[in-house]
Amino acid sequence: MVTSSVVNTYPLSSYTFGTKEPKMEKDTSVADRLARMKVNYMKEGMRTSVEGILLVQEHNHPHILLLQIGNTFCKLPGGRLKPGENEIEGLKRKLSSKLAANSPGLQPNWQIGECVAIWWRPNFETIMYPYCPPHITKPKECKKLFVVHLSEREYFAVPKNLKLLAVPLFELYDNVQRYGPVISTIPQQLSRFQFNMIHP
Amino acid sequence: MVTSSVVNTYPLSSYTFGTKEPKMEKDTSVADRLARMKVNYMKEGMRTSVEGILLVQEHNHPHILLLQIGNTFCKLPGGRLKPGENEIEGLKRKLSSKLAANSPGLQPNWQIGECVAIWWRPNFETIMYPYCPPHITKPKECKKLFVVHLSEREYFAVPKNLKLLAVPLFELYDNVQRYGPVISTIPQQLSRFQFNMIHP
Repeated sequence: MVTSSVVNTYPLSSYTFGTKEPKMEKDTSVADRLARMKVNYMKEGMRTSVEGILLVQEHNHPHILLLQIGNTFCKLPGGRLKPGENEIEGLKRKLSSKLAANSPGLQPNWQIGECVAIWWRPNFETIMYPYCPPHITKPKECKKLFVVHLSEREYFAVPKNLKLLAVPLFELYDNVQRYGPVISTIPQQLSRFQFNMIHP
Repeated sequence: MVTSSVVNTYPLSSYTFGTKEPKMEKDTSVADRLARMKVNYMKEGMRTSVEGILLVQEHNHPHILLLQIGNTFCKLPGGRLKPGENEIEGLKRKLSSKLAANSPGLQPNWQIGECVAIWWRPNFETIMYPYCPPHITKPKECKKLFVVHLSEREYFAVPKNLKLLAVPLFELYDNVQRYGPVISTIPQQLSRFQFNMIHP
C-alpha cells in the first residue's frame, strides 16, 4: 500500500516545440461558458472532463506545462469527454488536440498515469470543490487530473493563439490568486511522488 | 495505473471513546519547539515525522479525526520517528500513544494505507512546503501523511488534556486560517479516493 510513485522527469530542453493552427475557445465569456454547460447537461447529463499534468524539470525542480490564453489565464491541457468515452482514451485525444502536431507520425507517446485529484462542480457556477458537497445529488461536472508520464524526447505543436509555459511547483504553491484553486494545489497533490530527475 | 483507491468509512457512532492520562506537549512555545528541533537535528539529522488521517462519516460526508489542544490548535495524530524506525511501525506506535487505551488487549487495528502527502521543512522555522525547495540540500524535517483504514468498531482513549474532533472535509477546505496549510489541503489530497460509506 505504501509504495511511493515515481515520475521520471527530463529537462525542458529535451523537448521540441512548434506551432499549429489556433484553437479558439468555444466561449468568449464565463457567462457563455456556463450557459453552454447547462445546454449540454440537459442533453448529456453530468460533464466529465480530464486534464493532464505534464512534468519537466529545470534546475532540478519539477515544472508543469500550462497553456496560457491571453496574458493571464492558465489552464492544464485536457477537456471534456464525449458521452461514454473512456477517460484515458479521451485524455489522450484531448492532449493530442491541444499539443500534438497534425501529422499522425508525430504524436507524442502519451502515458497516462495516476489520477491525483477529482474536482466537482455542484451548480452551473464557476466554483468547484475537491469533494461532492453534502446534499448535492446531481453534480454538474466532475473533473479528473492525471499525471502524464512524458518520454525523454517529444515534439509538441502549440496552437498559435496559446503559449505553453513550464511553471515551477514553487510558483504554483499558495498562489490561488494567479492560478486558481485547482492548479495552485497541484504541488500538494504531487508531494507524495518521488521525482527522478534524469539528465540525459 | 489508474485504479482508484477506496476507503471504507463507518459512522462516528460505530466508535467508542474514552479518556486516558494527559499527554502533555513537550514544548510550551513555538520558539522552544524550534530550539528542541535544532538540538535533535545536531544529534540525529533530519527529523522524519508521520501522521495519520483517520476517516469516519456523518451525513454521508467524510470527516477526519483531529486532536485539539486548548481552544484552537488542531493536529493530526502522529509524531516523530525514532532514528532508523520503520515509517509504518512508527506511525502505529504514535497512533497508539495518542489514541489507544493502555491495555494491550484494546489496541485498535491500525491499517496504514496510502501516503497522500509529504511536506518539507527547509529551515528551523514553522514554514513547510509540499516539495523540497530548490537549493535546499539539508532539509530539517520531512513529514508524511498516511490514510489509516479504520475497522468497523474501535475503542479510542483520548488523553484528558486533548479533545478528539470529527471535522468534515467541507470545514477543512480552503480554511488555512483555522487549520494551517497542511490540514486545510487534506480534502484535495483525498479527492482521488472513492469513499465507500458503510451503514452497518
